[in-house]
Amino acid sequence: MSQNGLCWVAADWGTTHLRVWLMAADGAILERRTSPKGMGSLTPDQYEPVLLDLLGDALPEGETPVVICGMAGARQGWIEAPYAAVPCTVPGIDRATRAPTRDPRLSVSILPGLSQAQPADVMRGEETQIGGFLAAEPGFDGVLCLPGTHCKWAHISAREVVSFRTFMTGELFSLLGRHSVLRHSIGEGWDEAAFTEAVSDTLSRPAGIGAELFSLRAAQLLHDQSPDIARARLSGLLIGLELAAARPYWLGQEVVILGEDALAKAYEAGLNSQSATCRRVPADDATLQGLKAAFAQLKASQ
Amino acid sequence: MSQNGLCWVAADWGTTHLRVWLMAADGAILERRTSPKGMGSLTPDQYEPVLLDLLGDALPEGETPVVICGMAGARQGWIEAPYAAVPCTVPGIDRATRAPTRDPRLSVSILPGLSQAQPADVMRGEETQIGGFLAAEPGFDGVLCLPGTHCKWAHISAREVVSFRTFMTGELFSLLGRHSVLRHSIGEGWDEAAFTEAVSDTLSRPAGIGAELFSLRAAQLLHDQSPDIARARLSGLLIGLELAAARPYWLGQEVVILGEDALAKAYEAGLNSQSATCRRVPADDATLQGLKAAFAQLKASQ
Repeated sequence: MSQNGLCWVAADWGTTHLRVWLMAADGAILERRTSPKGMGSLTPDQYEPVLLDLLGDALPEGETPVVICGMAGARQGWIEAPYAAVPCTVPGIDRATRAPTRDPRLSVSILPGLSQAQPADVMRGEETQIGGFLAAEPGFDGVLCLPGTHCKWAHISAREVVSFRTFMTGELFSLLGRHSVLRHSIGEGWDEAAFTEAVSDTLSRPAGIGAELFSLRAAQLLHDQSPDIARARLSGLLIGLELAAARPYWLGQEVVILGEDALAKAYEAGLNSQSATCRRVPADDATLQGLKAAFAQLKASQ
Repeated sequence: MSQNGLCWVAADWGTTHLRVWLMAADGAILERRTSPKGMGSLTPDQYEPVLLDLLGDALPEGETPVVICGMAGARQGWIEAPYAAVPCTVPGIDRATRAPTRDPRLSVSILPGLSQAQPADVMRGEETQIGGFLAAEPGFDGVLCLPGTHCKWAHISAREVVSFRTFMTGELFSLLGRHSVLRHSIGEGWDEAAFTEAVSDTLSRPAGIGAELFSLRAAQLLHDQSPDIARARLSGLLIGLELAAARPYWLGQEVVILGEDALAKAYEAGLNSQSATCRRVPADDATLQGLKAAFAQLKASQ
């Protein structure tokens, strides 16, 4: 195969989207492609046709490895890729599950997620981001925070994921802001001071969030509180609750936030307001780097 | 007007429903009627036609008083009935707002809700339930808990509502159980032991709820946790969070839970698990009793 031709395919197959990178042998990205056909909308026999629709024109003669992370490996996905239980290193291609394919040009491996027995927790996809981060910083010892719909905190030591916890903060923010009575009071803007104050409110008194939520509505009705303040405050109350619960993770630890977007910056601001030290590193690339690390292992094992 | 004829109409006009009671002069209920035309679906000029559709055939010659509580008095309702600010007695007909009507048979009064400046809070409708309870127990000194989509806790002393707080516990339960990732793991059943344990979990460690929520999903994936246990545990986590925040209300107080349904019983079980003393009283009737108390005042003032 030529150095400039397609050598392998990296894929992040989540609940709502499929992202693929067409990779050359020298590690260059030949092309990125995406499909809206996520795990949530597919039956097991639809995965191969979706992949061929997206990639078929680019596949050369012979077998092309496709390395997949994410929800495609869930029980209700393409084929179940059993979880690796922490503490463990980020599982590589040796623990991947082969997906059944008919087209001889495809050789599909799905990477496992991580599980934790007690407290019960799971991840699928984020472990590959963690693997990508550790490929760049193999000596890292500390805590990774991966903001998102379901924010993950992972304690890393000696290249192992020691433990992790998932917080539904992003999903709660979305449900409350869009579907609860608070939707009438929540805008699209932001107010940094209101955010910081709210983080501090729930960090110092976590239980108060129950009543603080409805006060966002009442403060608008009674005191004309602005929708931007309400939105920042809702975010701050929820992130403050998460930071209170995650305190054993971040207190006295080196914290790296994987992300550069507004949400990642909000976590950074929240942690800084508690005098916790943290740094942000770009996350765009972490999934691909993790998939590359897994593929490198595949090549090494051949 | 004959003693057996329609004397006045009691109405509870909420966001999603309108309930009316056709009342005789001696206090007997002649008839109950309901309409699905709640405040949420009406513009101001639609209220009178809705009322006439529901009542028109029953209205005698002359003017019939209609006494309304609930969201019809909201700013986006029929006409704004300004809040009465606590501390205050439950506002009676003297503080009601007259709604504009064209039909000479209607004389419509909308009772105010209650507001609290700090912490910002509001209620519309529950104050009338409180008024109904106090009509039966005028000497009550303690705390009322009114479970529902938005649960209200009110401190009552010397016939006044001293302060109150609203918790979105019921709405959170519904959003998380029906619209979040947890919907895959939540059943329709119940497990009392799981509920009690979860109440205790968040009461002792309120912040933990952030991570405990996702564990409901993970425990199903990893340990086949039953959907009934997950549902009871979700309810317990949320009610525990509310009880933790409401502790200043119930600790060392006489608590009355206004309600007889499964939700009211869950609050009772949660409070009992914390060795708090409480009793439940039927709530079905409290709104009508409150409207009757307001109407009695109208008659007295004429």
